[in-house]
Amino acid sequence: MALIVQKYGGSSVANAERIQAVARRIAGAKDRGDQVVVVVSAMGDTTDDLIQLACSITQRPDEREMDLLLSTGEVVSCTLMAMALKSLGYQAVSLTGFQAGIRTEAAWGRARILRVDPDRIHHELEAGRIVVVAGFQGITDNLDVTTLGRGGSDTTAVALAAALGSPRCEIYTDVEGVYTADPRMVPEARKLSEIGYEDMLELATWGAKVMHPRAVELGQVWNIPILVASSFTEAPGTLIHGEANMEVRNKVSGIAHEMNVAKVTVRGVPDRPGIAASIFEPLARAGVSVDTIVQNASADNITDLSFTVAKQDLSKAMPQVEKTAREIGASGCLGEPGLGKVSIVGGGMQNAPGYAARMFRALYEAGINIEMITTSEIRITCLVREDRVKDAVVALHRAFELDQP
Amino acid sequence: MALIVQKYGGSSVANAERIQAVARRIAGAKDRGDQVVVVVSAMGDTTDDLIQLACSITQRPDEREMDLLLSTGEVVSCTLMAMALKSLGYQAVSLTGFQAGIRTEAAWGRARILRVDPDRIHHELEAGRIVVVAGFQGITDNLDVTTLGRGGSDTTAVALAAALGSPRCEIYTDVEGVYTADPRMVPEARKLSEIGYEDMLELATWGAKVMHPRAVELGQVWNIPILVASSFTEAPGTLIHGEANMEVRNKVSGIAHEMNVAKVTVRGVPDRPGIAASIFEPLARAGVSVDTIVQNASADNITDLSFTVAKQDLSKAMPQVEKTAREIGASGCLGEPGLGKVSIVGGGMQNAPGYAARMFRALYEAGINIEMITTSEIRITCLVREDRVKDAVVALHRAFELDQP
Repeated sequence: MALIVQKYGGSSVANAERIQAVARRIAGAKDRGDQVVVVVSAMGDTTDDLIQLACSITQRPDEREMDLLLSTGEVVSCTLMAMALKSLGYQAVSLTGFQAGIRTEAAWGRARILRVDPDRIHHELEAGRIVVVAGFQGITDNLDVTTLGRGGSDTTAVALAAALGSPRCEIYTDVEGVYTADPRMVPEARKLSEIGYEDMLELATWGAKVMHPRAVELGQVWNIPILVASSFTEAPGTLIHGEANMEVRNKVSGIAHEMNVAKVTVRGVPDRPGIAASIFEPLARAGVSVDTIVQNASADNITDLSFTVAKQDLSKAMPQVEKTAREIGASGCLGEPGLGKVSIVGGGMQNAPGYAARMFRALYEAGINIEMITTSEIRITCLVREDRVKDAVVALHRAFELDQP
Repeated sequence: MALIVQKYGGSSVANAERIQAVARRIAGAKDRGDQVVVVVSAMGDTTDDLIQLACSITQRPDEREMDLLLSTGEVVSCTLMAMALKSLGYQAVSLTGFQAGIRTEAAWGRARILRVDPDRIHHELEAGRIVVVAGFQGITDNLDVTTLGRGGSDTTAVALAAALGSPRCEIYTDVEGVYTADPRMVPEARKLSEIGYEDMLELATWGAKVMHPRAVELGQVWNIPILVASSFTEAPGTLIHGEANMEVRNKVSGIAHEMNVAKVTVRGVPDRPGIAASIFEPLARAGVSVDTIVQNASADNITDLSFTVAKQDLSKAMPQVEKTAREIGASGCLGEPGLGKVSIVGGGMQNAPGYAARMFRALYEAGINIEMITTSEIRITCLVREDRVKDAVVALHRAFELDQP
């Protein structure tokens, strides 16, 4: 008898029919003799609806109140799931984040889990019950309710798996697993049966959006194998774990992409200490999140500096950058919306030459211009025009033969 | 500086505009220098919507899960109210029943408050904050969420007033106070400026529906004066308290009524010990709530026994009663729907003769037949045909000169 943690996302519990269907899946796991802890997200668009409700009261809702408000979405879905399980004849109990012992720091909207007090869950499991936990939430030592931010329910699930000593965490969603590229963009994209934590992190961070990187990281730290699969089908999913058989595989796991990127370039920057700080500090104060930064090699102590921001932040970033450019004596600055990113990701790349060259050639042959290049140990990313992102992903998927098992 | 507890019902917080309007009222109380604790109900029809959601999952939702589900309605409204207060520039904090220290027994759907641990509320008040508490809910010693049943938020408010040593509990609703009769039925009905707990209990129990009797009883036990007033206007309300100046007032406080009553009569009942139990025990097991019971004087050890039930319970009651009637050798039984109750209520009645006679004469002069009579120390109730209830209320209101201050 194993203890399995399963998580079902918002689209998996979007209405009564879906909740009943998921209850039958959970019952199946129980029938196989396992102890089952289920984590649920809020139903469908509930969280967005609650945010809209708060914004109808005030344009800047208080963060503490917002967390308590949003936590109700997952409480509703976990009680309904427990009701559905009981109506099928199974013993079940719903627990709020607080009741489930999810203790967090007092950081509204983005609280990190400090610890899990699993006594209540153990007690309910020993009584033979299926335990349904409200995801995305916890409680501070002062007994204030917090939410965990984006990917919160995934994080709840992995944290519970770690705290309960579960051998596996199962994340059920509306996709069947992790693909070599976005299947909506590349019809021949192939579902991976397994992937390492690192590769999954790069894929998710750079746009695959199957599972939040934060929960993947937590799985990596606690070495919890995570199965990502669909709650709508019986197809086998993708196992994210630490022992993926990387050495003998194609070294590129998949192609990630991201839309809505803008590039800011400051030209003719005097190359002296402190310049970078003088550019980025005002942006941080204005709440602009800066992504990739590239500084070209300096010639005659004059350099060009480029970085990317989300497209919707460009109008907020430019006045700051223009002001700084004048102050530091740069020759000018330029903001370009309409860009996107495309990346090849693979754990074996750093030890094998030629990946970058193969990537650049594939883009060249597809007639796609590269606006900027950045790399990490397991990723090579090119900035391209947004209207060429799809062509780039298709070209790279083919060039690295990702449609072949 | 006093500590005031205010409660706002569902219609008072039904939408964003109402919440903002109520927030301004609360701010006014704070501006007058008082410490303010606010109890809110769920917005508008939220509770009914949540019940419907649960019933879309299963026809018989589990009671524990239902309580946790329903508790979210008041959590939503209390967070929104705290946001609204903060947006007006006031310090405020929302607290769930659990955070507010409302400890109850573990009786789902109808939990009684065992005690209030007011530490957190005191702490927040001392920090200068307006405290907004989710009504209708509490938590057991096992940390399970309960709801208090009908009138729950009123009960929360009065219990908090008692626990916090508040000199007054203010209940804001969609009526301007307690009237001498239902103003929709008697246009000349007059708002009472004050009323005793006992009279209020009889008025509310017998259909005035301004405030739940349970909360009035709690106010009586703890001697908390309760002001009932409208959240939509600035009109003065009705003060419910123990020291109403009853001796010098008109002895009848008001006319109560109730629709949808059915009468069951068992005829020719052998008058021996245990007969009443044999009739009412099967009804209790069938979940039928029996109201007024009247047994006529016995002649030759044969008696008639009548009682009332809610109209919608009549079809459930009759098969039980018919079966019992056969078993005990009664001569027959009869169910009559289409009845209603009309009552005169007044704390001074028991010490002054002639009220009953005046009531019966007024009904007689209006051509209204009396089907059954029951009395308590402060109330006389007549069962009449439902289509004559309105005429009866109007006639009694005039007969006891309730339109005169």
